[in-house]
Amino acid sequence: MNIALVGYGSVGKGVAQVFLNKRDLLKQNFELSISLKGIFSSKGALIDPNGLNLESILGSKDLTVHPSWHQELSFLETIDDLDLDLVIEVTPTNIKDGEPGKSHIISSIKKGCDVVTANKGPLVVAFNELSQLAQKNESILRYEGSVGGGIPVFNLVRETLQGNSIHSLSGILNGTSNFILTQMTYERTSFESALKTAQELGYAEADPTADVEGFDAASKTVILANGLFGMNKGIDDVYIQGITKVTPEAIELAKTDNFVIKHICSIEDGQIEVAPRLIQKTSPLAVDGTLNVVSLKTDLAKEITIIGRGAGGEETASAILSDVVDIHLTRVS
Amino acid sequence: MNIALVGYGSVGKGVAQVFLNKRDLLKQNFELSISLKGIFSSKGALIDPNGLNLESILGSKDLTVHPSWHQELSFLETIDDLDLDLVIEVTPTNIKDGEPGKSHIISSIKKGCDVVTANKGPLVVAFNELSQLAQKNESILRYEGSVGGGIPVFNLVRETLQGNSIHSLSGILNGTSNFILTQMTYERTSFESALKTAQELGYAEADPTADVEGFDAASKTVILANGLFGMNKGIDDVYIQGITKVTPEAIELAKTDNFVIKHICSIEDGQIEVAPRLIQKTSPLAVDGTLNVVSLKTDLAKEITIIGRGAGGEETASAILSDVVDIHLTRVS
Repeated sequence: MNIALVGYGSVGKGVAQVFLNKRDLLKQNFELSISLKGIFSSKGALIDPNGLNLESILGSKDLTVHPSWHQELSFLETIDDLDLDLVIEVTPTNIKDGEPGKSHIISSIKKGCDVVTANKGPLVVAFNELSQLAQKNESILRYEGSVGGGIPVFNLVRETLQGNSIHSLSGILNGTSNFILTQMTYERTSFESALKTAQELGYAEADPTADVEGFDAASKTVILANGLFGMNKGIDDVYIQGITKVTPEAIELAKTDNFVIKHICSIEDGQIEVAPRLIQKTSPLAVDGTLNVVSLKTDLAKEITIIGRGAGGEETASAILSDVVDIHLTRVS
Repeated sequence: MNIALVGYGSVGKGVAQVFLNKRDLLKQNFELSISLKGIFSSKGALIDPNGLNLESILGSKDLTVHPSWHQELSFLETIDDLDLDLVIEVTPTNIKDGEPGKSHIISSIKKGCDVVTANKGPLVVAFNELSQLAQKNESILRYEGSVGGGIPVFNLVRETLQGNSIHSLSGILNGTSNFILTQMTYERTSFESALKTAQELGYAEADPTADVEGFDAASKTVILANGLFGMNKGIDDVYIQGITKVTPEAIELAKTDNFVIKHICSIEDGQIEVAPRLIQKTSPLAVDGTLNVVSLKTDLAKEITIIGRGAGGEETASAILSDVVDIHLTRVS
């Protein structure tokens, strides 16, 4: 399978590392041989029509001096020259217009490639456009890594709950805000102090707006609404309330009745919400720290809850690998 | 797809009901048309070579007066006369010799049928024998419903965590003992009193041995060890300790340090155990009531935990349906 990896941040590096580490296993278990023809970063590209040498690339400190490096070469300039089966799109998320990911995905689909992405941007701004384009071009578009990092959600429903109707969903989809609320709960600190701890530990960015104001979680909930419930929603359709106004007093009050305050995403009766909510301490939704959780109400299996790490290069690469293997198996069958 | 349903207790009835309710959805989403040729209970069988009328069967109070009824006709007598693609084996569990399920499964495989079972007995006593027989005969043998009711575990690993290595597993696989420990924790009652409540609510049987002594959970753990970890274990390989000796005092002591006592199944480093263990209150494993949980430590996705209802006719039917759909999709591809 000829693949291009577009985006080389922590997720892109995770994917490259996993392709290298799992080379033998993928051949043995799935008869899948991956040839990575190109890796595209914001500064240029590594290209080898015979397949890049991942050992050498993952071992080099400075890619720009690597023999395969082409300064400033972009994916869109190169796509016609590489004989690609599948494109992995993991450039940075941009929920304003979805670029550059959206153009990468559209061009890939139009070239007849299958696409695996963990990039929320294109899916938030153009979910149905991209899905329909893929369908029209008989491309497979998969996006397990865009929501919940290594936690399978879309594949869980499609591959293990066939025949179930999903009535509603609730979950925690942002590890940073969950960490902050957990700190406030157990350390009895203010929001500001918990945010500072999160920043010191590298869980929160210098500008934490996307996490603490709920935009990141809202983006993921939009993708779930469209991908699992067949809706046609955008970020403006989500009622969003951040966690910046949650007080230690409110958390203490909740505790006295065995509740915790969690930043809950929900999809129910066509309504999409992200807001602080009271959750029973003993509920499967009451996960702590940076964990993510998704809970589905279904007609046959009833409530199914899945918990795991919602971020991380290797974790997200796990979701991407699952999509790649699944597409491979579909294409060879 | 021509199917026989062998066993007509709560799971068997759940399967028949789900086949009826989901008839249109299965056709539409998966191009799957199910024709149920026979339903076998301990007293006899309903047979119709043109496919049984499920509305009429599920509506009748007394099957023995139904026009399709054959008193004392057994599955093994009939299998040669029915043109079957797949057999669903859900007779009562017998972990001594696996019968009658084991013979049903062996005969079905030898006839070239695929098999879906939720019956722990045959899998506990003869997992590798049955797997190898299926492989030799190019039959597909699936058993999602045998562990954790409606919770996908085997399908979760196979279909959504491809490429991950599973290092270890821990979980709670018996809702009755989890309910009893939860009662003891929140109501501060003795084991005996909590058991009585469980019996009154229908969660525990008159003879609760299999649940409270850990044999049911141990059986499920053996199936997980063989099915997920490729082991070749039997019930005698499990270190089993029941919950009958857990005292309210031990539970209170755990509480003071924010632990709970749970009946934990574990597979790690080739060792299989079922025993009461201290679990941090905030751990995803610390689920309450009759819930079941399975937590997997993997190399890429890290820890993935799935929670749901471990029993119930419709829940288990959900797992069986997932297996049936998956086999159908494999066979038509």
